[in-house]
Amino acid sequence: MRAISLKPIGTIHSPYTDTGQIPRGPGAQHEAEGVLELVPELETGLTDIDGFSHLYVLWVFDRSEGFDLLAHPRLDDRPHGVFATRSPRRPNPIGLTVVRLLRRDGPRLHVRGLDMLDGSPIVDIKPYLSSVPPLEIRRGWLAEAEARGRTPP
Amino acid sequence: MRAISLKPIGTIHSPYTDTGQIPRGPGAQHEAEGVLELVPELETGLTDIDGFSHLYVLWVFDRSEGFDLLAHPRLDDRPHGVFATRSPRRPNPIGLTVVRLLRRDGPRLHVRGLDMLDGSPIVDIKPYLSSVPPLEIRRGWLAEAEARGRTPP
Repeated sequence: MRAISLKPIGTIHSPYTDTGQIPRGPGAQHEAEGVLELVPELETGLTDIDGFSHLYVLWVFDRSEGFDLLAHPRLDDRPHGVFATRSPRRPNPIGLTVVRLLRRDGPRLHVRGLDMLDGSPIVDIKPYLSSVPPLEIRRGWLAEAEARGRTPP
Repeated sequence: MRAISLKPIGTIHSPYTDTGQIPRGPGAQHEAEGVLELVPELETGLTDIDGFSHLYVLWVFDRSEGFDLLAHPRLDDRPHGVFATRSPRRPNPIGLTVVRLLRRDGPRLHVRGLDMLDGSPIVDIKPYLSSVPPLEIRRGWLAEAEARGRTPP
């Protein structure tokens, strides 16, 4: 199958400079604030985005190299298929984060809920339109690991 | 900024062969069922995915060419910034869809909720872990267009 080439549309300004600083695991709160800064020539693409409370950000794990089909999440002592985790070591190192839009300032979106490293490239932004009803969500191994309690590192 | 190269990890088998068949607009129901077929060598990456009820699928609008910074969604008579829409004509033609996982059959995931064309390449699959509380979601121009009623094409 043909490869697809993506070009960054902007950069994430986040308080995190090291992956160890990013909260993870059960009950982790992602309240970090920062800025999604688009390249100036794409600013028109943000027209009317201010009306949305939440956005999807698609971005690149640019400091991750290679991938593992079985990932070892920090909060479990068992490996899981990489597609059943959010591990950065995935065949295509694309991250997906839901953020709350606080305000827009030209090509800069001030947002809350960042969990990516400072300087990560953005490849797309989309409006967050609807949720799966919470009672319908099953969270597989993650719920089981939480129920067992976090294992020491 | 450096370009990023993605390699498809599989293919979507969907009932839609023409974009006109895909339900859109207010109240559109995405109940279409189909299969996400991974390339066989990545099957191990699906280990434990069966425990999740919903998945994010990242895929490629492979029949879309070029982009517009202002998109003209079918259900509104006004243009909106492309990043405030789900238009396929975006700088990086990546689609994002939440599907319900019905069952897994080796490298094939049977799912409900497809809104992509048959044969679209898959670039990532991630577990759907949590929702934004529905009362916190604001849907900008989309809610306004719905309130005005659908305009004739």
